[in-house]
Amino acid sequence: MDLSPQAITFAHANSARFLTEMKELLSIASISTDPEKNPDMLQAATWLMAELKKRAFENIQLLPTKKHPIVFAEWLGAGADKPTVLVYGHYDVQPADPLDLWESSPFEPTIRGDLIFARGASDMKGQIMACLKAIESIQSAGAFPVNLKFLFEGEEEIGSPNLEPFIREHTDLLKCDLALNPDSGMIAADIPTVVYGLRGLAYFEIRLRGQATDLHSGLWGGVVQNPANVLADLLAGMKDKDHHITLPGFYDRVRPLSAIEKQEIARLPMDEKYYLAGTGARKLVGEKGYSWIELASTRPTLDVNGMYSGFMGEGSKTVIPCYAMAKVSMRLVPDQDPEEIRQSLVKYIEARLPVTMTYEVIVHAGNPASFTDPNTPGVRALEKALEVVYGKRPVFKREGGSIPVVGHMKHLLNAESVLTGFGLPDDNLHAPNEHLNLPNWYRGIDTLIHFFYNLQP
Amino acid sequence: MDLSPQAITFAHANSARFLTEMKELLSIASISTDPEKNPDMLQAATWLMAELKKRAFENIQLLPTKKHPIVFAEWLGAGADKPTVLVYGHYDVQPADPLDLWESSPFEPTIRGDLIFARGASDMKGQIMACLKAIESIQSAGAFPVNLKFLFEGEEEIGSPNLEPFIREHTDLLKCDLALNPDSGMIAADIPTVVYGLRGLAYFEIRLRGQATDLHSGLWGGVVQNPANVLADLLAGMKDKDHHITLPGFYDRVRPLSAIEKQEIARLPMDEKYYLAGTGARKLVGEKGYSWIELASTRPTLDVNGMYSGFMGEGSKTVIPCYAMAKVSMRLVPDQDPEEIRQSLVKYIEARLPVTMTYEVIVHAGNPASFTDPNTPGVRALEKALEVVYGKRPVFKREGGSIPVVGHMKHLLNAESVLTGFGLPDDNLHAPNEHLNLPNWYRGIDTLIHFFYNLQP
Repeated sequence: MDLSPQAITFAHANSARFLTEMKELLSIASISTDPEKNPDMLQAATWLMAELKKRAFENIQLLPTKKHPIVFAEWLGAGADKPTVLVYGHYDVQPADPLDLWESSPFEPTIRGDLIFARGASDMKGQIMACLKAIESIQSAGAFPVNLKFLFEGEEEIGSPNLEPFIREHTDLLKCDLALNPDSGMIAADIPTVVYGLRGLAYFEIRLRGQATDLHSGLWGGVVQNPANVLADLLAGMKDKDHHITLPGFYDRVRPLSAIEKQEIARLPMDEKYYLAGTGARKLVGEKGYSWIELASTRPTLDVNGMYSGFMGEGSKTVIPCYAMAKVSMRLVPDQDPEEIRQSLVKYIEARLPVTMTYEVIVHAGNPASFTDPNTPGVRALEKALEVVYGKRPVFKREGGSIPVVGHMKHLLNAESVLTGFGLPDDNLHAPNEHLNLPNWYRGIDTLIHFFYNLQP
Repeated sequence: MDLSPQAITFAHANSARFLTEMKELLSIASISTDPEKNPDMLQAATWLMAELKKRAFENIQLLPTKKHPIVFAEWLGAGADKPTVLVYGHYDVQPADPLDLWESSPFEPTIRGDLIFARGASDMKGQIMACLKAIESIQSAGAFPVNLKFLFEGEEEIGSPNLEPFIREHTDLLKCDLALNPDSGMIAADIPTVVYGLRGLAYFEIRLRGQATDLHSGLWGGVVQNPANVLADLLAGMKDKDHHITLPGFYDRVRPLSAIEKQEIARLPMDEKYYLAGTGARKLVGEKGYSWIELASTRPTLDVNGMYSGFMGEGSKTVIPCYAMAKVSMRLVPDQDPEEIRQSLVKYIEARLPVTMTYEVIVHAGNPASFTDPNTPGVRALEKALEVVYGKRPVFKREGGSIPVVGHMKHLLNAESVLTGFGLPDDNLHAPNEHLNLPNWYRGIDTLIHFFYNLQP
């Protein structure tokens, strides 16, 4: 029975409270990469458990991993003849630095106009809250139409190192018919979007060591090689003048776009203007021979995410550093393999590195790209829900970011993921002043209400 | 009258107290580049003033500059017919970081074997103390043979930005016949050394800005240029495969070595082994066509002294940074001009920088190289003193480091500098575990006692 009108009425009547509750979760500085924030990580997990308890979920558990625990809960009251949906989310957020560029404190959620500013507002505490509030609204109207499970992890922003083993060890507990993953987003507030492909991620830290100690650049300058200069040379050589990546064999496994996919992508309203506005760049720059949207979602990339050497303080220090470090990551596309990419990087470094240097390559993440078949009941339910709420058929697109769990759901649980989310491209994800568009968030709650009802067989 | 035997006897009898007093000065964390250490800077200056007061100097003053004050004192009791020697020193030291690489705390002077470990032990508080203790020893034996002035600055380690204007404004106060500058060093503990040439220093900070804010590398990777990658390309392009610097016109004014100078330099005992031991490098690397000692002292260099971009913390952050910075400095040789070098750098950057980026070049230091004529009474007095104490004729060499004040003394006060100092190449200057060889320091005191007596007309 479709009780969606009642559920929608409840959602609209409770919108102010929903926002207050989201603010509570956004106030917790759950930065997974920072060991000092472990207490905050636990606080965020505990907050979600309490919220699930209020909604009468069962078997609520905090399951340990090697790093941050996973929150699990379920409700199987719809019966074995109804599908089971596993709702995925991550309660961790990116670091907030550089702090001085935030206009309001990252963990004191602040509303300015239609936007709520806080680290994690869009990525993805706001999306988790949209799911929970849609579910609460449906519960208020009557029996829930499908079975539900929840898996909220705390390591997405550090590449989910413990998620795959966790899923592998808990396949019975997590058994489901499909997964709902609201960690994706929309192209624009008026363009409902279904995401059917994601890029993967290979993230490395390259460490170079030269001589044993920092040296005085006056006494010794001229006869020793400088690891900072050598690192610059390594990084510079990773792309050619056409922005083509030079690591050996890097493109070997890249699956070309089909003619049909190329046509679909060309219909998306994401032109130069869109990317200029979204990035704030003076001019777009990318590999030759591809459109901007192809470059941002269907082509692999290589970026320096961070680098360091020597003296960075105020003023000057005349030192030849003994150490230099860069964090370098590649966005991967089907069918590139993260381990092959690591080997390719190592091969490149070994061919180019002078004998004066030793190196280490640390792997921070390695996840292949993923694809979702648009022809599943889950994606259909989402498509219909978006059409009802936004009044137009959604577009289908591939996204540039990485959601490794989509691959794990498919390979370990045999479950397709339905990707959605109500963030927008200018939300400043991973950057200062991250925010979420509140009117779109409320439409997201409505959409998810319809989605769950649409799942009824 | 040569009372040097009495003075030497006094010095030897008081060696333990001399060491205790040096430790006091070394305990002060006078790091000029760190604004938080301004109280320590003042403490070091005050300590020196108290020490000068004890030795009955006159007109002791703390003279302000825009940043750190200058300590001045004088004694003109030898009479107008005797030469006046201006003793130069700097009481500031380099930063001590990375602190975790120090085996004992940098500002808790610690003796292990023949060595005293502390930041500034060799560069150059130990050298200042050798002068003061030589002078005290001479005073104990009778009337001082020449007139004395002192100029102790606090900005040498940040490129002495306020020293040139200070000297320019105080030419009467500082008027002298020659300067004694003990900020140089020896080749080895058994090779007394006279330094007659120094490299200059041009020190820049290059700042690149791309788009306005850090971006999510998944959402936007592929269409925007990354300032860290661009900076790497800029830095990598500054040298070619033969380690030749590519900045336009960089070598235009380099004065070639004369055949005689080349011969003199070739006689110095500084071969590959020496530089390998001194640097701790696996292999030496330098511009093609020059010997190692030529490269380390008579050829210009370019080194990255520090660089930074994006995320440097533990773990990973998938960000395209909006900002990247490098500190780059060049050691200059006669007759390169620091301002021309700045223009050359700017020209290079402007020719290579993509339109996606804006840049700034900050000048932290710009001092030309300097030469001292070995044919002056001061250098002769030092040569003779070294020969007496070390039992052999000193070698003459050019040094790779920079002492800009030597140029100022010459151009503003018409005074040649006598360069000396009793530090050794493995003292870890500007690096963790800086130390000073104490037996050589004591020989330094003896040498300076002879030097002052040798100055008598």
